[in-house]
Parts: sequence; structure tokens; C-alpha cells
Amino acid sequence: MPREPFKRSPDYLSKKNIITGRNPVMEALRRNAHIDKILLYKNAHGDSITEIKKLAKERNIPIQYVPNEKLNSLTNILHQGIIAFKSSIAYADLQQNIDFILSNGESPLMLMLDGITDVRNIGAIARTAFCFGVHAIIIPEKGVGALQEDAMKSSAGALEHVPVCRVRHLLEGLEILQLNGIRIFASAMNQQKKLHEMEFRDPCCIIMGNEGTGIQEAVQAKADTLFSIPMEKQFDSLNVSVAAGIILYEAGKQRTH
Amino acid sequence: MPREPFKRSPDYLSKKNIITGRNPVMEALRRNAHIDKILLYKNAHGDSITEIKKLAKERNIPIQYVPNEKLNSLTNILHQGIIAFKSSIAYADLQQNIDFILSNGESPLMLMLDGITDVRNIGAIARTAFCFGVHAIIIPEKGVGALQEDAMKSSAGALEHVPVCRVRHLLEGLEILQLNGIRIFASAMNQQKKLHEMEFRDPCCIIMGNEGTGIQEAVQAKADTLFSIPMEKQFDSLNVSVAAGIILYEAGKQRTH
Repeated sequence: MPREPFKRSPDYLSKKNIITGRNPVMEALRRNAHIDKILLYKNAHGDSITEIKKLAKERNIPIQYVPNEKLNSLTNILHQGIIAFKSSIAYADLQQNIDFILSNGESPLMLMLDGITDVRNIGAIARTAFCFGVHAIIIPEKGVGALQEDAMKSSAGALEHVPVCRVRHLLEGLEILQLNGIRIFASAMNQQKKLHEMEFRDPCCIIMGNEGTGIQEAVQAKADTLFSIPMEKQFDSLNVSVAAGIILYEAGKQRTH
Repeated sequence: MPREPFKRSPDYLSKKNIITGRNPVMEALRRNAHIDKILLYKNAHGDSITEIKKLAKERNIPIQYVPNEKLNSLTNILHQGIIAFKSSIAYADLQQNIDFILSNGESPLMLMLDGITDVRNIGAIARTAFCFGVHAIIIPEKGVGALQEDAMKSSAGALEHVPVCRVRHLLEGLEILQLNGIRIFASAMNQQKKLHEMEFRDPCCIIMGNEGTGIQEAVQAKADTLFSIPMEKQFDSLNVSVAAGIILYEAGKQRTH
């Protein structure tokens, strides 16, 4: 790893989404800037690195340990073994969000995304969530692609309107939801209970799983009710953003009638 | 345009989706191969070109006139001013398809796509159409991206199960549908009539328009009924494959209950 002092190069400011170098990353952490994740050279050490690790932990920002080549591939300026990715969106705190919904006298309608990494799907889901009055989208810290420009673009601006709560682990999120009396509904294949038989007027959170692998077992086990979208050809499956659209349409219909 | 005789080069066979050169294109047309469109050098002429134009017209295959540079950019072998794109799917005839549905004693449920060119959206829509029992998808000859590998992949195989009818112009398709007693329902913004108030058990065709521009005026004017998806935040719009999913879910629900 190069040990030269950090030099601000002319293209530093043009790299809108990344923060490069030890001091800039530390300063960003200190001023509570919205950061998605930090890439750190795996053998990096020193006082500033120790401080950065501490601040990142306090702020729930994941650190990924990478070889120097990975960092070199992302920037052509001196990175001192560290690059931080700025968030395009400001993440909301789940408990504060629930408190806010309840204080408005509304019945929470939340959407949890498990293993959905495709930004176009996330963008389309955010648009749908906004249209049907979802109060917040819950994503895990790891596994979901950072909600950067691509997701923002696919969401057609919806990600600026629907709060996104990022939790360390979905199980932690589920615990908070259940402690607040929010029922957990999970969409899964081949369930007896059908979508239109669900009671979406209740405070509830709908979990959508990855198209290929579905909802993680440990997460699904926490669900109060599993349900399926009724289909003529049940053996085939829908695109996840289409499935989310159908479910939120049904939920929205119940809530406005 | 080069006038050298066509030479079969070693990479000819590796270009799976294109047919290059006058004789190969003519032969493909004669044996009724599934061809999406033909790119023809704008100044090309000669007996074989006249014959190709005649065959393409008979088979409803669009010809696009292009500069030679366009053809050169698509292949590095001698193209003699002509390239044809093979279809990944076999298009169905609309009237034959309707006859088949009616002979099975079923009430046709068709989906017409107007100006939807994104292959991922088309793929997702095809999956949904398959899940909810749509009998056929109708697309125009021009304007819709050729349903090649990308759309096939996004459709997760659904495009092999749901017939796709390609019509010269959507107005022509609408005329065939209406002559067969199929009602035309068009999804549009801000309509009084809401999705769940529609009668989808009737023989019907649902038109979905381009996200940006909506359904073409002349096409929308032919619709028997316009309807909107009820939303809490009506001022925002859904991704077109999500909207199609919601509409087909509602249609499928009515038809199976």
C-alpha cells in the first residue's frame, strides 16, 4: 500500500460517489455523512485506520476488506488503502420511522426486501411502494446492492420519497417490527393462504424474497403468515418487482376501501 | 456497396442470429424462416434485391434501409448490402390464434403492447402473462424491439409458452380483435373507471402503453373502455411490467373465481 500523504487531485471532485483517502473518509464519518460501505485494503493499519473502523462500527457502516488491486481499479488517485461509497439516499432509523407513522395515527405498511440485489428491481419496487402508500422499505446492510444512482434512476425519484431503513440483519429488523405489534407477512410459493385472503389493514410488514432462492429460512420462520399469489400456472414464478406490485396493489386496495 | 460475390467466412456460422448476404437471406425467406427484420443498404438493387423485397412483403417482414456503415458495424464478412435478423421465437397468426381459443371454448384474454421496447420489461410481462393465463401477446411489427435472446432470458422461458402475434400495425390487430367480438380495454392515467370495476371475464384485450408516452392516440381511440389502477399517490406512475402484473392479477382473479 502506498504510504505517501494524500494528495487532492483535480479529478477528486468529479468522482461524485466515492471518497478516497484516510482523512477524507474519517472526516466524512465524523460529520455523519451518508456512507453505504467502505472498502479497506486488507493489510491497512495505523491510528487513522483504527479510528475509521471504530466510527464505521458505531454508524453501522459495513467495511469490506479487499486487495489493493481492487482499490486501484476504482480510482486513479492515491487512495491510501481506503475508499468510501457515499449513499445517494439517506437511510432512516426503523424505530424512529415506526414511531413517526404511529404518531400520525396511521397503520404501518412496511416492505422488507430479502436478497433482492438487482437495482432495476429495487427501483421498480420503490416506485410501486410509493404509489401504494408503503411507509418504509427495509433492507439489510449486507446483500442488497447499495442504493446508488442506478436504483435512484429506476425508481424514477420514488427513493427520495419512501424512507429506506437499513438494518444490520433482517432478523433484527423483524424483532423491532414485532415488538411494535407489526405483523409479518411473507410471500412464498404454494401456500394455502392466498393473497386476497390476507388482512392488510392491520399494521404489517410484507417480506419479498430473492427470485431464485426465496426468503431466507430463518427470516421466513419469523413470519406470522405465509401467503401465495393465486395463479393459473402456479409452477412458474413472477419477476419479484411484478410480484411486489400485485401484493401492494391488493394491500392498497384493502386500505382505501 | 461491395459487389464481390458472397464468401462464406469461418465466422459466418458463429453469428447465430444474423443471416448475411443476398442468397442466404433469399433462401431463408423462401423456406419461411422466422425473421424479425431485414437491414438493407439504401442503394442496393438488382434482381435478387427485388425478389427479397417481394418475399419480405408477402411475409410481413419489415425492411429497414440503412447506410453501408451500419451493415459494416454488424458483421465483418461480406454482407452484399443485406443482413437479416433471425427470430428467437415463432410468431403466431392473430386470427388463427383467436380461432384456436374459441374452438377450445375459452374466453380470449389478450395483451397488446404499444411502444414497449425494453426487452427486460417485455420478458417480465411475458412471465406474468403466462402465470395468469393470457392467451396471446400482440405486438406491432415496428417499434417493439425484436424478441431476441435478451427478452427470452428475461421471460424465463415464458415466451416459449405464450403465443406472440405480430401485426403490421396495432390498428389492424384491433380491427381483427373487434371483428371477433373481443372488447378492447386500455390502461391509462386518471380514468374514472378503476381496474377492479372492469369485467375481465368477457373476451377482452388489454392494451399497455409505453411508460413515457402512454398508448398512441389512434390506438387508444379504438378502446371500448379506459381504466386506471387505483393508487394512493396517483401522480406517480408504475413501471409498465408492474402495471401489467397488477392488471393481469385482477383479470386472472376474476376469471378463476
